[in-house]
Amino acid sequence: MASPDRTPGAGPAAGAPGSLVSALRAIVGEAHVLVRPEQLLAYECDGLTHHTGPPSAVVLPAEKGEVARVVRACNAHAVPFVPRGAGTGLSGGALALGGGVVIECSRMNKILELDPDDGVAVIQPGVVNADLSKAAAPHGLFYAPDPSSQQACTIGGNVAENSGGPHTLKYGTTTNHVLALELVTADGELVRLGSRTGFAPGYDLVGAVVGSEGTLGVVVEATVRLVPLPEAVETLLAIFPDVVSACRAVGDVIRSGLVPAALEIVDQRTVRAIEDSVYAAGLPRDAGAVLIVELDGARVAVSAEVERVRALAVGAGAARVEVARDAAERQRFWRARKGAFGAMGRLAPDLYVHDAVVPRTKLPEVLARVCEIGDRHGLRLSNVFHAGDGNLHPNISFDRRDPDELRRVLAAGEEILRACVEAGGVISGEHGIGTEKQDFMGLVFGEDDLAAMRRLRDAFDPALRCNPGKIFPTTRFCVESDPKARGYDRVPLGGAPRP
Amino acid sequence: MASPDRTPGAGPAAGAPGSLVSALRAIVGEAHVLVRPEQLLAYECDGLTHHTGPPSAVVLPAEKGEVARVVRACNAHAVPFVPRGAGTGLSGGALALGGGVVIECSRMNKILELDPDDGVAVIQPGVVNADLSKAAAPHGLFYAPDPSSQQACTIGGNVAENSGGPHTLKYGTTTNHVLALELVTADGELVRLGSRTGFAPGYDLVGAVVGSEGTLGVVVEATVRLVPLPEAVETLLAIFPDVVSACRAVGDVIRSGLVPAALEIVDQRTVRAIEDSVYAAGLPRDAGAVLIVELDGARVAVSAEVERVRALAVGAGAARVEVARDAAERQRFWRARKGAFGAMGRLAPDLYVHDAVVPRTKLPEVLARVCEIGDRHGLRLSNVFHAGDGNLHPNISFDRRDPDELRRVLAAGEEILRACVEAGGVISGEHGIGTEKQDFMGLVFGEDDLAAMRRLRDAFDPALRCNPGKIFPTTRFCVESDPKARGYDRVPLGGAPRP
Repeated sequence: MASPDRTPGAGPAAGAPGSLVSALRAIVGEAHVLVRPEQLLAYECDGLTHHTGPPSAVVLPAEKGEVARVVRACNAHAVPFVPRGAGTGLSGGALALGGGVVIECSRMNKILELDPDDGVAVIQPGVVNADLSKAAAPHGLFYAPDPSSQQACTIGGNVAENSGGPHTLKYGTTTNHVLALELVTADGELVRLGSRTGFAPGYDLVGAVVGSEGTLGVVVEATVRLVPLPEAVETLLAIFPDVVSACRAVGDVIRSGLVPAALEIVDQRTVRAIEDSVYAAGLPRDAGAVLIVELDGARVAVSAEVERVRALAVGAGAARVEVARDAAERQRFWRARKGAFGAMGRLAPDLYVHDAVVPRTKLPEVLARVCEIGDRHGLRLSNVFHAGDGNLHPNISFDRRDPDELRRVLAAGEEILRACVEAGGVISGEHGIGTEKQDFMGLVFGEDDLAAMRRLRDAFDPALRCNPGKIFPTTRFCVESDPKARGYDRVPLGGAPRP
Repeated sequence: MASPDRTPGAGPAAGAPGSLVSALRAIVGEAHVLVRPEQLLAYECDGLTHHTGPPSAVVLPAEKGEVARVVRACNAHAVPFVPRGAGTGLSGGALALGGGVVIECSRMNKILELDPDDGVAVIQPGVVNADLSKAAAPHGLFYAPDPSSQQACTIGGNVAENSGGPHTLKYGTTTNHVLALELVTADGELVRLGSRTGFAPGYDLVGAVVGSEGTLGVVVEATVRLVPLPEAVETLLAIFPDVVSACRAVGDVIRSGLVPAALEIVDQRTVRAIEDSVYAAGLPRDAGAVLIVELDGARVAVSAEVERVRALAVGAGAARVEVARDAAERQRFWRARKGAFGAMGRLAPDLYVHDAVVPRTKLPEVLARVCEIGDRHGLRLSNVFHAGDGNLHPNISFDRRDPDELRRVLAAGEEILRACVEAGGVISGEHGIGTEKQDFMGLVFGEDDLAAMRRLRDAFDPALRCNPGKIFPTTRFCVESDPKARGYDRVPLGGAPRP
């Protein structure tokens, strides 16, 4: 396949010319096209607050036909477009960096069908993650992927990022729960991928689109699996003297053949941040690490498993193991995990929720390195992590307006990724690559590997108009002191600039 | 993306010219290049015995570097190549129809690494499916996808076809168990896809390659998940007066929230074929349908679940429910399922194991139609099916040398697919499309949908040399009276012939 030299997407027409705005208004109605600077400011970043750039326009379609027409209008004006859900993403994936039209899917928030017999729901992309499980609950079902932002994030965004969550260990990520998709392609055609039976002949394009960060088209409908609500759920909270013994317990539980729904560790730094905040969960401030284990399934099995996990935790060195007596206590345990973001977020204006994966057996040594890196750069860094998956989330509280601190945050972020890769890991678990990590793709992929991905990208979007400037490296690895400089004018990696 | 008119793959040089044979011998050694007609005859078909065509040559590489060099040699001579595992596939996917080089992976049969702590194995593609579970067993682990041919089929072939098996209901298909792949691309480059951590940034090319039927490259190494062996396994066999009540039991079990490892139904015709054969399993000859339910997990849970399933089966109309008392009895129950192929296969020289999927709730009506279709065409047809997945396997015993019977088999096969699609199903569950069903892809996909798949194909293999002539429609839907006529010279569907 030819790889012509070209600048991504927009060419000289990266703004939203007046005639395009008129076309968009004709499609979705004037009220659903935002062009005023103060409106656009709300779309200048996602949850990665230090990568910013406002779009040229935001359009809010009500249904899939409108999305297709919006895409065709953008194409007619050679203007790039960026699908966006709730904007809770953490890798700068939902920005129109360099200008372009954001297609915001919040109005497409209907559950079109919920079929308890087949265990299937058909939804529009703007359905909020937690709302689907709420709707499924009366039928004894739930939608398993549960990112921490599930009260706000949309399933369309989850599909783009292949979102996971604390229960990924047992239930898998979004890709394990999407049966079929309807996609508006980069050239504005509506295609159906996959099948609601879960079996689909031909290439698994559903799998290719899930996790493609909105670069292969705009997802306008999803058919997803619903799974039975477990009969019983039990949650344990174990206090360890140090993170090494907590990790040992995780290994022991997994080697025992148990498959808990969740295995989460909160490190000492996070415990202190939580206990010093409004999210205080009654954790001992001197805990070296806190392990949360959730077990679900048949009541008789779960009861027996609780005792096995308790014994394994004690055997690995736990000073204390508590089992939640009721839903309120279970929520308190989870506050110790989920409050980490809030507690760390209150320490400074910005919170960088980092994301990387290492083989489970390497967790203790990598965590020690992560803490050393944060300390050396003088940063407020703490760790919570999906220990069962080896999925780390170092959290760094900082102020992006302080150029020196921002530089240190980015330098530490890069060092953390390198440490994870050296340990046999990868640079992202569930947050995607976006603009955050595009220049680190070369740490895990060779030129041939990236070329294979680019061929897929080119096959779906030869004009590079669909969420350009994401995922693929733009430049040699470097620490950017001024992230606002991130754009298309950077030093290319062995060729013309490409997204 | 341009879609130039071109004949697939070989052009005028579809044979294996002497200079290519010399090149292949130089790469893998003379003993590992087969060119004599009697040698090639063994490769003229896979498990779909009525689609035949011998390759120009067969090459048996020993390691991935040799595969890459073989592919480059084929490219240099403009000759297509076809990766092949054990040749147990059932959709004509592993043939070099029209000539070309078969790359047979049986010598690449090493388990390169087995890591019980991370629950991961790294294997060469020629490892036999069952051998991996055997190697993992001492560590308390197994490889979950278990096609009926697992004693013979290779994991490379399983990857190509995204193979399932009786335990797909609980454990998923091959795609749910492959973490990373090493692939020789169509142009002979070695690329790594995915990551052994199970998290992979960028596009999910592992997912795209799994199930791509050998058309996107040659898989030369796979990193797969191993899962814990369940503590307990219980198998129930329930005798029903008819298939409708057996299907009702399946629906009741699934709606109860239980997730059995397997839910298999054997119809009356199959029961009689089995009991009349050396595979006799002591089933009552007047059984209207037999349901096999396998439960696995923690011992205490499984014991309770056995009683719940028994009650649900009786409630749905089971005349008798047996629970296997030991491993020998469990094997006897499974013989009633797995013996179906052998019993039906002994009735005539050829066995057509058909494969399609319908929504679970449509099983009874579709089965009635399938039987009516078989009867109307005067065929020996019986059904076994993965009822939990809605995955039908009508088996037809026939003699391909009888042109009239073959015509009726193909006509019935097409009618069965149409019935499944009308019921909201798809044309393949776990056997792939290959040459068997390529002309029925239009039953489930529109031109735009197929165009999206073609773009992926073109991106990976622009010269169409890697297993050409598979998956994509070659002609308008029709019943072929002479399958030997299947090739590249058929009436194209709206354009030049394409694979």
